[in-house]
Amino acid sequence: MANLKQLEGNGIPERLFRGKQIPKAVIKRLSLYARALQIMSVNRIERISSRELGEALAINPAQVRKDLAYFGQFGVPGFGYFVEDLRKQIKAILGTDRVVRIALVGVGNLGQALLSYATFRQEGFRIVAAFDSDKRKAGGERAGVHIYHSDDLATKLKELAVDIVILAVPAPAAQSLAETIVGAGIQAILNFVPIRLVVPAHVKVHYVDLTIEIESLTYYLK
Amino acid sequence: MANLKQLEGNGIPERLFRGKQIPKAVIKRLSLYARALQIMSVNRIERISSRELGEALAINPAQVRKDLAYFGQFGVPGFGYFVEDLRKQIKAILGTDRVVRIALVGVGNLGQALLSYATFRQEGFRIVAAFDSDKRKAGGERAGVHIYHSDDLATKLKELAVDIVILAVPAPAAQSLAETIVGAGIQAILNFVPIRLVVPAHVKVHYVDLTIEIESLTYYLK
Repeated sequence: MANLKQLEGNGIPERLFRGKQIPKAVIKRLSLYARALQIMSVNRIERISSRELGEALAINPAQVRKDLAYFGQFGVPGFGYFVEDLRKQIKAILGTDRVVRIALVGVGNLGQALLSYATFRQEGFRIVAAFDSDKRKAGGERAGVHIYHSDDLATKLKELAVDIVILAVPAPAAQSLAETIVGAGIQAILNFVPIRLVVPAHVKVHYVDLTIEIESLTYYLK
Repeated sequence: MANLKQLEGNGIPERLFRGKQIPKAVIKRLSLYARALQIMSVNRIERISSRELGEALAINPAQVRKDLAYFGQFGVPGFGYFVEDLRKQIKAILGTDRVVRIALVGVGNLGQALLSYATFRQEGFRIVAAFDSDKRKAGGERAGVHIYHSDDLATKLKELAVDIVILAVPAPAAQSLAETIVGAGIQAILNFVPIRLVVPAHVKVHYVDLTIEIESLTYYLK
């Protein structure tokens, strides 16, 4: 039961935007909108209706309008949205209008795959450092990213002004590393380790849990 | 815009359980409950209250009771649940009380990491085949899994009675492969490719989109 203690989790309040509480699903859809608008912008499409944006993503147009309305008045009724304008505003809301600095902790199979994940770079993310407890890996580099020893985690996270940590280590090491990471001032962790992390309320953890994805798909098989 | 067509997606009805519509979030929490109960069972804990189960996962006890109530009457008021009994019943609801047969399409960096992901085996999943379009990879094996050439995809998926396909290929190849996979009778796809797949309504696709996870974390940084 050591790994299943009280933690943040499902009950925590979502971040407020000008006093409004924004559901997590809305934030994830904003990211989808930004990507669709990016593709449209590259294809020189200048304006779009909520119906067209919705159709491109199989999201109800009313949902599109409702999602955007959380953050202000973007479109013109009967006219739609200016693609490039809306894209920039969504990136600003998400905070991805600047380069986001990421560190990877754990350079195993999954970690190495993440380092090679080219999409990150296209989307304005930069993996600025990797960490591993294996002394043979430390000092080297993978996919152009320097690998430090885990002993240097706290120091380097601060020094390199890391925004987000991706955690991809074996389960027994995860909680202790999470504490070091939080101690270094990190407020956002993307956790690939199949355990729930115990972190203070101000730290946001997103979980990518492959077993749960597969199990919930299994449910729909029958 | 080629990759952003009309598709299944957010509006599709969830699978019914004895006439009731079950939200996707409930199914994912069932998987969390099963894992917590598994750990308790190994630790010889015989019974547990909804409060204790909730605390172990940072889920409100009322939520735990509400989730389980979708599927029947499991606990005894004032007594709680028998751990092993509840675990077995949840596994039966999820359909994970038998071995689930998985195929991996795309043996790149991410695919190789997934093949080595040991947790799958512990949880009753078996990766029975991998596929790649690279003739140098086909014929070989990784982590004990045989790699077939993508040309044999349709034939082998049927022959090996695959339940779920994990898609981890470059974006331009994804839609065409998805059509072959669906054509072979597969009804559940776990998609790591950052595009929305166009599939018939009876096929369930779960998306693991790393960019969206990072972007939505970025939102909470400010």
